[in-house]
Amino acid sequence: MPQFEKIEYKPIPVSELLVEMKNLSELMIDLAYSAALFNDKELAEDVIELESRIDTLAYLLDMEIMIAARDAEDAETLIGVSTVAAAADKISDAAADIAAIVTRNIGIHPIIGEIFEKVEERLMKATVKEGSVIAGKRIDELDLAARMGVDIIAIRRNKDWILDPDETAHVFLGDILITRGAPMGIKEFKDLAEGRLKKLED
Amino acid sequence: MPQFEKIEYKPIPVSELLVEMKNLSELMIDLAYSAALFNDKELAEDVIELESRIDTLAYLLDMEIMIAARDAEDAETLIGVSTVAAAADKISDAAADIAAIVTRNIGIHPIIGEIFEKVEERLMKATVKEGSVIAGKRIDELDLAARMGVDIIAIRRNKDWILDPDETAHVFLGDILITRGAPMGIKEFKDLAEGRLKKLED
Repeated sequence: MPQFEKIEYKPIPVSELLVEMKNLSELMIDLAYSAALFNDKELAEDVIELESRIDTLAYLLDMEIMIAARDAEDAETLIGVSTVAAAADKISDAAADIAAIVTRNIGIHPIIGEIFEKVEERLMKATVKEGSVIAGKRIDELDLAARMGVDIIAIRRNKDWILDPDETAHVFLGDILITRGAPMGIKEFKDLAEGRLKKLED
Repeated sequence: MPQFEKIEYKPIPVSELLVEMKNLSELMIDLAYSAALFNDKELAEDVIELESRIDTLAYLLDMEIMIAARDAEDAETLIGVSTVAAAADKISDAAADIAAIVTRNIGIHPIIGEIFEKVEERLMKATVKEGSVIAGKRIDELDLAARMGVDIIAIRRNKDWILDPDETAHVFLGDILITRGAPMGIKEFKDLAEGRLKKLED
């Protein structure tokens, strides 16, 4: 089981670790609710996998903080950093708990759906399939925000997540994209990514 | 101390309680980071106060769930609801932990500021002061989204929080507004709310 593997220490700046923990944990909440809402087991499993990524980051961050603290004054201000990291860890735990409703087949109570009825923005997962017009394109070429009010918030490529990808990043065949947007826009985007809709032009 | 006061039972639909817990807990994260970022003790205290509001909601929700469950099947699907509620509670705890960095004067490490440098949207707190052009106006009259890319996400009036206020809601003298938006826009809005900027016209 991966959680018993020894995590190898490699020096990573504390700020970099903290940014990743913060962004990832908040993304996980959105993803966990999406998994519950769409009863998407695979997405729920991804969230649970990300939780162990957060644990690894927390471990590395704790090491960095210990190394950085030379005296009581250092230690005091670093407590704040460690608190923010612990908060991100708690948020990721909460996300994994929500995701576990899906993976454990507990069943999504209609109330959970109801709480999303008022939400204007939804999340959608789409895989870039053979023949999709978006495969190989740069994100800024797609002009998604203006075209359909859609934002790609994460790309899963092989085993890695690219979070909040740069506008200059490319989208490749096989990428799993997590998008956020209005229900109509994200549906259209999914059709484009999965090759059911062939025209990018509006 | 308020946490030792007995919470009086009043029947509130489970979905209503859950929506409030979800929205409030996510708002709290934004507010807690804002408190840390701006080293705003009052806002941090508000977050800690909201945490006890979440506890009250969780208590009432647990009661409602118990009353609603008549058999094992009910109980099983209600476990999902209770898990989402517990997740919201965890998120609010995380927010309160971050807020406590501020109230305990631990000191905001520069790294905490750094993690917000890449963030496009910020939060700002503004009080509607005597002579402000926005006092008494309806939110839709202000046309904030189009004018300056600002969204009012919460209004504190007396002891109550109005979260995600309706576009038809009014803004009154003395209201504390939490806004989200691009740094320039929220600064302009704060100047309007606090009476330093007198013109609403663009």
